[in-house]
Amino acid sequence: MTSRGEFQRLADLGPHLAGSSPAVPVGVGDDAAVVRVGAQDVVVCVDVIVDGVHFRTDLSSPADVGWKAVAVNVSDLAAMGAIPQAAVVGLQRSPELTEDAIDQLYAGMAEAGREWGVAIVGGDTVTAPVWSVSLTAIGRPAAASITRGGARPGDRLVLVGPLGAAAAALWADGEGLPVPDDLLAAHRRPRALPSSGVALARAGATAMIDLSDGLGADAGHVARASGVDLRIDRTAVMAAVPSTVVDLLPEDLLARVALGGGEDFALLAAVPADRVDACEAALTETAEAPWRWIGTVEPPADPSTPAVWLDTPAGPPERIDAWGYDHG
Amino acid sequence: MTSRGEFQRLADLGPHLAGSSPAVPVGVGDDAAVVRVGAQDVVVCVDVIVDGVHFRTDLSSPADVGWKAVAVNVSDLAAMGAIPQAAVVGLQRSPELTEDAIDQLYAGMAEAGREWGVAIVGGDTVTAPVWSVSLTAIGRPAAASITRGGARPGDRLVLVGPLGAAAAALWADGEGLPVPDDLLAAHRRPRALPSSGVALARAGATAMIDLSDGLGADAGHVARASGVDLRIDRTAVMAAVPSTVVDLLPEDLLARVALGGGEDFALLAAVPADRVDACEAALTETAEAPWRWIGTVEPPADPSTPAVWLDTPAGPPERIDAWGYDHG
Repeated sequence: MTSRGEFQRLADLGPHLAGSSPAVPVGVGDDAAVVRVGAQDVVVCVDVIVDGVHFRTDLSSPADVGWKAVAVNVSDLAAMGAIPQAAVVGLQRSPELTEDAIDQLYAGMAEAGREWGVAIVGGDTVTAPVWSVSLTAIGRPAAASITRGGARPGDRLVLVGPLGAAAAALWADGEGLPVPDDLLAAHRRPRALPSSGVALARAGATAMIDLSDGLGADAGHVARASGVDLRIDRTAVMAAVPSTVVDLLPEDLLARVALGGGEDFALLAAVPADRVDACEAALTETAEAPWRWIGTVEPPADPSTPAVWLDTPAGPPERIDAWGYDHG
Repeated sequence: MTSRGEFQRLADLGPHLAGSSPAVPVGVGDDAAVVRVGAQDVVVCVDVIVDGVHFRTDLSSPADVGWKAVAVNVSDLAAMGAIPQAAVVGLQRSPELTEDAIDQLYAGMAEAGREWGVAIVGGDTVTAPVWSVSLTAIGRPAAASITRGGARPGDRLVLVGPLGAAAAALWADGEGLPVPDDLLAAHRRPRALPSSGVALARAGATAMIDLSDGLGADAGHVARASGVDLRIDRTAVMAAVPSTVVDLLPEDLLARVALGGGEDFALLAAVPADRVDACEAALTETAEAPWRWIGTVEPPADPSTPAVWLDTPAGPPERIDAWGYDHG
């Protein structure tokens, strides 16, 4: 739920925010927080999407926006290995958001909620000059909660889900090109992968994140939180880019858009060597999305600057943790 | 968390929203929802406050806004009889909200959090044209969760906390009059009453609500949810209005502002006759705010229209459930 740009701000706000403690097993700075309620760990996250910043009403219907508000939060829960359960909605309605549009917005939320088992249990609707949805989701850990900080040298990196489709859609639209239907669908109705996140948590993943900011930037979060370098194989990871994206994008932009464009809601996880077979079996059984091994976790070359390296067939590795999109 | 104006909309959205079920013991339409997570009931609510709609930066500092964002949610949890625990923050920042103001905003949240035991565990910060805070709080029931729908004929009505101070502050400001300090403080730094809510839940209250929309309107929510009439004694309830408010307001406006102005975050609860002594003892021990018995629950005079009546020393009772302020 924290975007890259606010990471430093969160650090600055340290005294005001809850770090980890017995009452808060996972505090500020991960995809979601974990709060102990009675004897139960509860996973909670929030994402805000604003008209003109995170969606455009010429590309997305109100129902699409409702779907997306749920999907981005389910994706955060997935990255913790949590099972989604419920959500509350803070809706800011502007004059152009009609009653009918609000009905469609909620219908889209309910549709995504049915897809992933999220009950929309309440909300607060207020008037505002620009419309936006702030959605908070809660869930429960399927096993241990998986943070960004558990990756260890020797772990392998698994990627679940495709890369680059939503970013390619926005690129094409920006260039005035027709946007292929499958890419537009990836932008309008992103697929969260909660079953995959749960499967990986149960099978023993050590760290996990969802790729809302792009593979490069989000892998960078894991590298820094874990104090490790991540090495990603270019050939392996580019196999996760759909052929529509490959056909559409100029070759010199392809890797940058696919690995840095964000809004993928794919999952990246670190898996110890002795859990690789278990994770493969779990992901195969889940069958929620294609998955592939894309790299390894290594000790940091420079311990003061954990980094993400893209290994290319020819030439030196390229550092990619500064790639990525900072969402508003 | 639902304001009066959106009540009909929530009803219209019925198919999209979760009613009560084993997984959702309290669904849409109360101060907060209750979700069963594992074997634990978790109480969750959200409130959105927007610059220029719910606060004014000429009256409130960023720290005041942060405090208020926490207070309004703690008040919702209090009204369920829940113990507050944690919160996540959806912050929309506009260009005029500086880094320093954000730091103050979070400082105000943290201050209120320390006051009421709420850890600020995460958030999402995005850019937007107008700044706002959407805060979601979670807590755990101290006993059974107390809804708006449990009041029964024969119950007595207890009010905890003062009435009218925040509304009087805004009235004075609107009239261009100097605003007394204690009233301005009530507007800037409202006091939630979680210990009182918990005490009433443990002592056997049957229904409870916080008075964010004003006594008349919020008592109306209880009347409709419970299918009862509420009778409130004017003399008893006006004793909850601070002398500063009485001195400030013209006599013909006093009751309307104090009972309809909203933003009080006092608690109104229904208590069965055989629990009156227990509630008195619990509230006295808690000593969080002054409390008083202000009325009774009766069978509805017109079952199709449960209502709230203000009994005056002279003249016929006045119906007051249409009084109140609809917050944006």
